Amino acid sequence: MYTLYYSPGTASMVVHQALLEIGADYRLELVDFDKDAQHNAEYLKLNPGGKVPTLLIDGRPVYESVALLTILAERHPEAKLIPPVGTAARDAWLQWSVFLSNALMSTYRLWFYPDELGFEETPPAIRAAVQRKIESIWDRLEAHLSAHGPYMLGQDFSGADLLLTMLMRWSRNMPRPATEWPALKQLADLVRARPSWTRLYELEGLSEW
Amino acid sequence: MYTLYYSPGTASMVVHQALLEIGADYRLELVDFDKDAQHNAEYLKLNPGGKVPTLLIDGRPVYESVALLTILAERHPEAKLIPPVGTAARDAWLQWSVFLSNALMSTYRLWFYPDELGFEETPPAIRAAVQRKIESIWDRLEAHLSAHGPYMLGQDFSGADLLLTMLMRWSRNMPRPATEWPALKQLADLVRARPSWTRLYELEGLSEW
Ligand SMILES: N[C@@H](CCC(=O)N[C@@H](CS)C(=O)NCC(=O)O)C(=O)O
Ligand SMILES: N[C@@H](CCC(=O)N[C@@H](CS)C(=O)NCC(=O)O)C(=O)O
Repeated sequence: MYTLYYSPGTASMVVHQALLEIGADYRLELVDFDKDAQHNAEYLKLNPGGKVPTLLIDGRPVYESVALLTILAERHPEAKLIPPVGTAARDAWLQWSVFLSNALMSTYRLWFYPDELGFEETPPAIRAAVQRKIESIWDRLEAHLSAHGPYMLGQDFSGADLLLTMLMRWSRNMPRPATEWPALKQLADLVRARPSWTRLYELEGLSEW
Repeated sequence: MYTLYYSPGTASMVVHQALLEIGADYRLELVDFDKDAQHNAEYLKLNPGGKVPTLLIDGRPVYESVALLTILAERHPEAKLIPPVGTAARDAWLQWSVFLSNALMSTYRLWFYPDELGFEETPPAIRAAVQRKIESIWDRLEAHLSAHGPYMLGQDFSGADLLLTMLMRWSRNMPRPATEWPALKQLADLVRARPSWTRLYELEGLSEW
């Protein structure tokens, strides 16, 4: 019923972990970045942006990791990855998920893909500004979690925590990794203790945090 | 029941128009950008990012325009701003709304707010790269709409069209406004013909497209 086009450790990771949390039936299709497979003509038909993830849902291609997380969470309410419509918790879930996509994921692209701004290599002053922006987001999330944690929604784990942990992981080789913020580290530790995390690492062949 | 913190013609516009489409009871609170009111201490308590929109839902502040559009659409299914859970149309709605937030809105910030990248004034080469990225998104949406329009979901109007029209409007003083793409212009014309658009212009005191 689901086919996930993925590349290990990338934005497909949150969708993969959601599939595991749900216990859904799915197939994996590797998009080999070493061969630039995200830009081959067949793949561009599924995802004209040439990015992962793409999820086939009953044969239809859908993309944008945060949309896919929302879709899977809604279609499988028993997994409790998203709170029900009309609750304060759902409003918070949507706020944070969209915020992480709009503010944090988009800024990561400026860090990892210099050609987004037309560069071969990003000039140091701009890299510093991008780094500051990412760190200011960790500050904001830290303030939220230390007051209202340990999870993004408080006492209850949800799909928003999978999303945040994936995004934290991407900072591991940055000058100040997100795990230097204590409430963020605590949340990541909780997510990394889940069986779905261990299974994801096996299936995607991941090693470093 | 709802209070919208807004500034005319900004990202609050889509939330305001959704409230009008729904026919919801709401109050408006102007956030006066000329006085930098988005950064005063009272407002930062509601929205630590210092941006509009913020919506009070039963007294609770929630932000991120695309989250608010989704929340209002879900809470008021009779307005048909979002298709029901479990349908292909809802998957498409979420994909496009998240895409517009993640790829387009975030790139607009680089166009309109040089300090996002640490500049007083953005160097021409970077401005050109940002412009190219925005225009490549119009290309992609044009391809989608000319094949599957006139609305983002095909024959049926939805909240995704309000979002896209607001974002198109922001390009009106750019070198190539989005209305130069014919299928995009057709969609904007359909949205601009809605009574909610006229009412929005009156209430926010807008004049230019
Ligand atoms: N907004 C997209 C971003 C996806 C994205 O940036 N994916 C990266 C990997 S993390 C990718 O596919 N990069 C390959 C490329 O851009 O060539 C989403 O959330 O799905
Ligand atoms: N991702 C946010 C972006 C909101 C945003 O950038 N709002 C702008 C107006 S369009 C703003 O408040 N600017 C004032 C400022 O940044 O000082 C959302 O979608 O709500």
